[in-house]
Amino acid sequence: MKEEIFQSNSCHFWITDDRFDKIRLEIKVKEICFSGKSPFQKIEVFNTYEFGRVLVLGGVIVLAEKDEYIYHEMITHVPLFSHPKPENVLVIGGGDGGVVREVIKHKDVKQVTVIEIDKMVVDISKKYFSDLSAGLNDKRIKIIYNDGSKYINEIKEKFDIILVDSYDPIGTMQHLTGKDFFEDLFDHLTDDGIMVTPSQSPITNYNLVKKTFKSLSNIFPISKLYLSYLPSSPFGMMSFIICSKKYDPEKDITVTGLDNFDAKYYNIDIHKASFSLPTFIKEMKQKGDK
Amino acid sequence: MKEEIFQSNSCHFWITDDRFDKIRLEIKVKEICFSGKSPFQKIEVFNTYEFGRVLVLGGVIVLAEKDEYIYHEMITHVPLFSHPKPENVLVIGGGDGGVVREVIKHKDVKQVTVIEIDKMVVDISKKYFSDLSAGLNDKRIKIIYNDGSKYINEIKEKFDIILVDSYDPIGTMQHLTGKDFFEDLFDHLTDDGIMVTPSQSPITNYNLVKKTFKSLSNIFPISKLYLSYLPSSPFGMMSFIICSKKYDPEKDITVTGLDNFDAKYYNIDIHKASFSLPTFIKEMKQKGDK
Repeated sequence: MKEEIFQSNSCHFWITDDRFDKIRLEIKVKEICFSGKSPFQKIEVFNTYEFGRVLVLGGVIVLAEKDEYIYHEMITHVPLFSHPKPENVLVIGGGDGGVVREVIKHKDVKQVTVIEIDKMVVDISKKYFSDLSAGLNDKRIKIIYNDGSKYINEIKEKFDIILVDSYDPIGTMQHLTGKDFFEDLFDHLTDDGIMVTPSQSPITNYNLVKKTFKSLSNIFPISKLYLSYLPSSPFGMMSFIICSKKYDPEKDITVTGLDNFDAKYYNIDIHKASFSLPTFIKEMKQKGDK
Repeated sequence: MKEEIFQSNSCHFWITDDRFDKIRLEIKVKEICFSGKSPFQKIEVFNTYEFGRVLVLGGVIVLAEKDEYIYHEMITHVPLFSHPKPENVLVIGGGDGGVVREVIKHKDVKQVTVIEIDKMVVDISKKYFSDLSAGLNDKRIKIIYNDGSKYINEIKEKFDIILVDSYDPIGTMQHLTGKDFFEDLFDHLTDDGIMVTPSQSPITNYNLVKKTFKSLSNIFPISKLYLSYLPSSPFGMMSFIICSKKYDPEKDITVTGLDNFDAKYYNIDIHKASFSLPTFIKEMKQKGDK
């Protein structure tokens, strides 16, 4: 991502998502809210016309106010509604608070551990994304500032649900996508535990998604890919890989508490439909189907 | 859409989709294949790195080689697999041949009438989009060069399926989205006929989609919205409205011939899943659900 000044009637400020060199998305900026550096990465917050405030970490747009709820609902509610009693939840990353906000909507949840490497992400989110970060003050939340891939080896605790909230596998989060890391997560799941990781778009990163899927399906008895629309991501498609030791997240849906559940994107139809894959990526489903 | 020259290491040519003034998608161009004017509109063909060849009508990207199959499969196979014997099909627009290519995959189809206003679209498609236009030479196809909204009143014929292949409701195709036009289509459907029209993205044009949906559900006994990913459209989401006199396209699926059916995106799971709507647009489904 880079910033450019365009001259037209007056000066306009745009941010450009150019992670692909043959295509780029430009978003018109109202104001720059924050630009700084943590010990780990460059952090920027822009207020944009089309997407509301956007958080940019290390030059990558990691969330936008306009549609962050889609990502956060889909990474959270699909696994939590696939588990009959998700009491103990681990979030790796997630310092912005979006995942936590969704997790604590589930009444069964008794404890949420967040391992965030960068305290500044938490501070910036509390200052500029109040809706996103509101849940971080819930008494069930424990935030640990550490490297998720290292810290996981220092604890013996097991979790019902592990959510890897790393949007981009490039940059600071690279160590959160390796095989060893996922084996560690397997060991830290209870016998009926469920893990979810975002896995980029099969349209732009087909081979990466396939590779990650294959590696995960070698570790977990049940691995499935599910899809979600996500307007602010490249080409609007986001995928997640859900890995489970016992429950099939496509079929074992615990409907308790779904009536009047507070969600803007997620619902029971969307849960089921998200596992339906276009023919060109269906091979991934078949490998994971038990 | 406008063309811009950017200076970097060398001169690069980009096309910019700026139909929204606060956001724009830029696509790097390899070569300009064609630029001309028909009696109806400006027509351009660009060869791009990311999307392959793209067809631009009146400044709007109407299709891209990379993902045209998604749009054409979804507008065609959802209605045709919802009808037990789709023999007589009418396509309004569709001069590029993409819809026709998919329609003739259905063995029941005996006749396809295409009403295309602009002969140059057909000629350009035959010259620059051979994969797209191949079906136009099938002996079941009859092409009529005329204005679909006027011509429909000059014929008495009734059709099992009517597909309105007008991607953008702005510009030349504006008269193909009005209430009177859809009432005319109702009259030209058999008693168990099905009609589909694309209806933009609910993310960018929520109110327009809602208005079109309401107007259609006042005319047809069954009207339902269904969704598809479409990478080259704004934010990657496309919606269609399917209107039916008898069959429920969400439930009455004729599975005959679906094994080994030649489609890269469409399959029976995708057919069903496409009717599952995110909560924020679910009100449209409920109005149409019978």
